[in-house]
Amino acid sequence: MYVSINNQLFSQEEANISVSDLSVQRGYGIFDFLKTINYKPVFLEDYLNRFYHSAKEMHLPVPFSRTELQEAIEGLIDKNNIPNSGIKIILTGGYSEDGYTMSKPNLVIVQSPLEINEHYAGNGVSLVTYNHQRQIPHVKTIDYLQAIRLQLFVKERGAEDLLYHQNGFIRECPRANFFIVTEKEIVTPNSEILKGITRSKILSLKIDGYTIVERDFKLEDVYKAKEAFISSSTKNAFPVYQVDGKQIGDGQNKIAKLVNGQLLELIKLNQEQVADIKV
Amino acid sequence: MYVSINNQLFSQEEANISVSDLSVQRGYGIFDFLKTINYKPVFLEDYLNRFYHSAKEMHLPVPFSRTELQEAIEGLIDKNNIPNSGIKIILTGGYSEDGYTMSKPNLVIVQSPLEINEHYAGNGVSLVTYNHQRQIPHVKTIDYLQAIRLQLFVKERGAEDLLYHQNGFIRECPRANFFIVTEKEIVTPNSEILKGITRSKILSLKIDGYTIVERDFKLEDVYKAKEAFISSSTKNAFPVYQVDGKQIGDGQNKIAKLVNGQLLELIKLNQEQVADIKV
Repeated sequence: MYVSINNQLFSQEEANISVSDLSVQRGYGIFDFLKTINYKPVFLEDYLNRFYHSAKEMHLPVPFSRTELQEAIEGLIDKNNIPNSGIKIILTGGYSEDGYTMSKPNLVIVQSPLEINEHYAGNGVSLVTYNHQRQIPHVKTIDYLQAIRLQLFVKERGAEDLLYHQNGFIRECPRANFFIVTEKEIVTPNSEILKGITRSKILSLKIDGYTIVERDFKLEDVYKAKEAFISSSTKNAFPVYQVDGKQIGDGQNKIAKLVNGQLLELIKLNQEQVADIKV
Repeated sequence: MYVSINNQLFSQEEANISVSDLSVQRGYGIFDFLKTINYKPVFLEDYLNRFYHSAKEMHLPVPFSRTELQEAIEGLIDKNNIPNSGIKIILTGGYSEDGYTMSKPNLVIVQSPLEINEHYAGNGVSLVTYNHQRQIPHVKTIDYLQAIRLQLFVKERGAEDLLYHQNGFIRECPRANFFIVTEKEIVTPNSEILKGITRSKILSLKIDGYTIVERDFKLEDVYKAKEAFISSSTKNAFPVYQVDGKQIGDGQNKIAKLVNGQLLELIKLNQEQVADIKV
């Protein structure tokens, strides 16, 4: 498995950066994560747009042009030869002499095999809520302090993931957006969150009998929802069968499965429009 | 300049870690920072206590015993031969296979020359306030996303550092605690902050005519304070001559200088009790 660092390829064993990097010294960096299916990146333009947006918001100049970045991604896909993968593009604060001042950012691209977890896609996941507002939520920073610190907390409660709320207002999961289904609506929070690419695709869907809306809601709305689901690049849409130990809906997850099906269609359409990288 | 990684010494050029480390992937790590004067660590026990406390709070097992850690620090002091220095001990989430799950932490110790900035010690610093509550504030994590992102903001306002408040309640600077002086009190915030070692030493001082107290106060109390100062290992106590462009007090900084002098005495006393590492 090769890793690209500043657009040079390294074997995994040699994929190192100096401990003076601001990611190590101060947790300073942004990233993005996209997937490939059959060697083709899915919604590449959307992910690159967000990556450049995050970089700008954190005052990190991307040391390569968009074309160079795209070529680096394609080079990695070609070299590693993994058809279905996740590609993570990290941009750090760079090597800092005093361990505090930003310098020239380092660009790291890693690829790893990725298949959608069919068990969770079919049976859903269990979430446990936690009162926490992510800082700079609209930017995809590398800050996952709370999520990783709380891994044990989640496990001890027999859950698969966290659902953050701020004083009762639902926000998001650490790596996914959250939706509830009511009588006539599919609703996802609107404030103080990272608005995911998959989330935006879901907002563009048409689901018979339902309007799909962005609007903040509360913890009690979750408990009484007809359904709930989470969305992300690695998940598409996973039903949520339980939150804080309480069962959500009737367990059929009809709408979540409909949404997931439509997402798969969208991805398929996108794939047909993308040229083959690996022939 | 040598760097210790997992208790092995590396030249600065070879002091690298894998990009799979959770600090790079997820900003996950803790650290501590202490100084040496004439080759002797100052208040070493206090800093090691805090380091172990932070590690525990973030579920990071320290991969070496306290004695081994102390020996690593002493080895670095001996090898690098810098009499007055800052020593930073970083503990990261370790090399993670999936870029999310914690693994065996990596311990990195770096040393760099350090002299107190006499200009700031004499003339004071200018601060600019910002509404932000640090997450997990009682733990010394590597999260400085806001502080580094706002470096430009601070510079543009002609200030030297940030002062965080949460909705008007003063908290702390990114790397220092904050104090105000009123008619009869020296007051430092008590809630949702990292309680620094230098702060705790100041709380133990006796200053004629003043009681030194921990109590939350507001932004408007700062603007009308008789004096203000900040404290940290690299600063001892620096007067604050300005906050948000408003001058604080009469510019004499009598109490800040008194506090600073007493801190220097405390450090001197501590130094006399510490055995020579470098002979």
